[in-house]
Amino acid sequence: MTTLNDCRAMDADDPLRQLRDLFTLPEGVTYLDGNSLGPLPRATAARVAKAIESEWGEGLIRSWNSAGWFELPRRVGDRIAAWIGAGEGEVVATDTTSINLYKVLSAALSIQAEDAPGKRVVLSERSNFPTDLYIAQALCEDRGFTLKLLEPEQIEGELAKGEAAVLMLTHVNYRTGAMHDMAALTALAHRHGALAVWDLAHSVGAVPVDLRGAQADFAVGCGYKYLNGGPGAPAFAWVNSRHADRFRQPLAGWWGHAAPFEFTPEYRPAPGIVRYLCGTQPVLSLTALDCGLDAIDTSRAAGGMAALRRKSLALTDLFIALAEERCAGHGLSLVTPRDHARRGSQVCLSRTEGAYAIVQALIARGVIGDFRAPDILRFGFTPLYLRFEDVWNAAEHLREVLQDGEWRRPEFNRQHAVT
Amino acid sequence: MTTLNDCRAMDADDPLRQLRDLFTLPEGVTYLDGNSLGPLPRATAARVAKAIESEWGEGLIRSWNSAGWFELPRRVGDRIAAWIGAGEGEVVATDTTSINLYKVLSAALSIQAEDAPGKRVVLSERSNFPTDLYIAQALCEDRGFTLKLLEPEQIEGELAKGEAAVLMLTHVNYRTGAMHDMAALTALAHRHGALAVWDLAHSVGAVPVDLRGAQADFAVGCGYKYLNGGPGAPAFAWVNSRHADRFRQPLAGWWGHAAPFEFTPEYRPAPGIVRYLCGTQPVLSLTALDCGLDAIDTSRAAGGMAALRRKSLALTDLFIALAEERCAGHGLSLVTPRDHARRGSQVCLSRTEGAYAIVQALIARGVIGDFRAPDILRFGFTPLYLRFEDVWNAAEHLREVLQDGEWRRPEFNRQHAVT
Repeated sequence: MTTLNDCRAMDADDPLRQLRDLFTLPEGVTYLDGNSLGPLPRATAARVAKAIESEWGEGLIRSWNSAGWFELPRRVGDRIAAWIGAGEGEVVATDTTSINLYKVLSAALSIQAEDAPGKRVVLSERSNFPTDLYIAQALCEDRGFTLKLLEPEQIEGELAKGEAAVLMLTHVNYRTGAMHDMAALTALAHRHGALAVWDLAHSVGAVPVDLRGAQADFAVGCGYKYLNGGPGAPAFAWVNSRHADRFRQPLAGWWGHAAPFEFTPEYRPAPGIVRYLCGTQPVLSLTALDCGLDAIDTSRAAGGMAALRRKSLALTDLFIALAEERCAGHGLSLVTPRDHARRGSQVCLSRTEGAYAIVQALIARGVIGDFRAPDILRFGFTPLYLRFEDVWNAAEHLREVLQDGEWRRPEFNRQHAVT
Repeated sequence: MTTLNDCRAMDADDPLRQLRDLFTLPEGVTYLDGNSLGPLPRATAARVAKAIESEWGEGLIRSWNSAGWFELPRRVGDRIAAWIGAGEGEVVATDTTSINLYKVLSAALSIQAEDAPGKRVVLSERSNFPTDLYIAQALCEDRGFTLKLLEPEQIEGELAKGEAAVLMLTHVNYRTGAMHDMAALTALAHRHGALAVWDLAHSVGAVPVDLRGAQADFAVGCGYKYLNGGPGAPAFAWVNSRHADRFRQPLAGWWGHAAPFEFTPEYRPAPGIVRYLCGTQPVLSLTALDCGLDAIDTSRAAGGMAALRRKSLALTDLFIALAEERCAGHGLSLVTPRDHARRGSQVCLSRTEGAYAIVQALIARGVIGDFRAPDILRFGFTPLYLRFEDVWNAAEHLREVLQDGEWRRPEFNRQHAVT
């Protein structure tokens, strides 16, 4: 049996332990929701204040050039590239994940309509994050494609039929924490003539991602989860350089123009990823995302993604072990794969009764996780700032909430919007 | 001849003079570019700091509900509605102007494809802001429409042909400051079976706008110009309630879903304007936009839009008079209409030689205006914070730059990106 002292010993041995000091974490809170909204880096408030008071207040319009605002989507994009196995000049930080998915999926469909006009199906997972499915559904209807939703085990068989133009998947599933094998599935898609579009929302900054190594075609991802860019921070888009100049995406705004300040009435797409920009970007939110990247970049000195991944698996292994040891007999089932190769940076448990209320009772105790309908308790474990002792505390609170039936209290059973 | 003392007397009589104190304006700067990027309201830095430190830092994920983040696009939209003659629940503040135009123009084309399938032309102005034309061009190509670019005087004749599905115009032209008669052109479009889509980027907060009164169909606009929402602040979209529930727009992300937190794989659009939302919005930038609206809302006590418009016309009248009195013989021509009914809140002058360099020389003197290719000097006059004395100073600097040939210096003739 694991003890609190064991957990403390693991913290003492943790090469990443000092990174926690880069973040503001409220007293009394065990934050297991960094996969929904990452916490505040200590440096962000002062940096955004400078953007407001000096760059905007003093520099005014001149700051588009002098403070580098106009370059931010590309500069921040290059920083993200380093965490997803992409090259310089291949990523832009911009807009939202949904909108970026619209852009890249649209480009993928255009390519396939030309290269493989007989393929009219887009494959995805039924349990993919819904906004990805909504965007794909709308695009498929507009372009005469069919969106086919699958269980993970059906993907290979469907690809083998040779009808799929695009395989669109989220690398780590938001509900289950299950991780796809990006390289294997991309290779399989290519073998059957499909392009592979990846959503990295729950993987960037949390698990190793190697888009070029996997020879993926397109990717999008989120800035406000494991990148700690702040609420609604801009998202990003990546396009494999073999496709980059081939199609213009339909959100063809002036920031994606080859010469936006010529103000010509005809659109001429910029080369490469820049054509995936559209309108003027929210500089304050992009500045906060830049600070989030400062925080994760600091981990490089302590081993970078290899060290983060090692700790992430140790944290999730520990939580699974503690939940099984200490909450046995309370009707919890493990949803997240035990296999390290198939696990993201979160642990999901399910319970047929009371999952929502249990999450509320935990939140009331300062252990912030997430409920995901209909029966999932979701706990994100971010190696940048969580301690093994936090894992112990979370499991202990879970045990107490279950053991004493605390979750049955009426105040924990009133449903309301949960993000 | 107008004198500096006349200008000071006008300032002393100005019922809006105290609103200037709501803004941070750098010492030594005469800011005539608020139509490109509005200046910093004094209250913004503290409000955004609170959003960062308290709402994000302490509240974390809970702030989506407890701090009202999730409601921000609708709440801020309602505040904008009051400045454009729209009703409550009819506007959302979200994404960028380009992206919102894509949404509403797409909806307009869908409506017309059903109601008037023979009409396959979208009309716009050749000198419309280019990003609007790029977005329309891409949508027209995808949907089998033709984008036809006109000079303003051709609009009536083209509409009379009965081929136009949509008339898409920017209310106040970014290059010339000329303002269209929204009510008359909308009525004309309707008479010929076309829908009217308006871009309010250079009018919202600066001139009276009455979308409902004009019976317009769709509108979009910008948060970072006369609304002073900060660099790249989110834009907005309005849909006439008679169209609101009729079509889903293609950027069908989860924030536009009727029940986003049910996480169902099928998209079910929310009623009304909410379906024009797509992905998670940049909260810090939306918060700054909220502060910009606080500033302009303060003008209500001193007369609101009627008073702002009165002063705006007095400022632009004064600048035209001073430029003509004091810069006569220097080759400047007035581009902006003299007719009040056709003038926005800016004055544009043209000069066949040296327009770019003259603007640079003025900027070096602290008079910040804009150059617009190939020959336009653009000066925005924002009644919220500008004084009549500022207009005098601007005209005097212009006179000196021209009279002494200062603009010919090499340092003012090196072209670089200007936003």
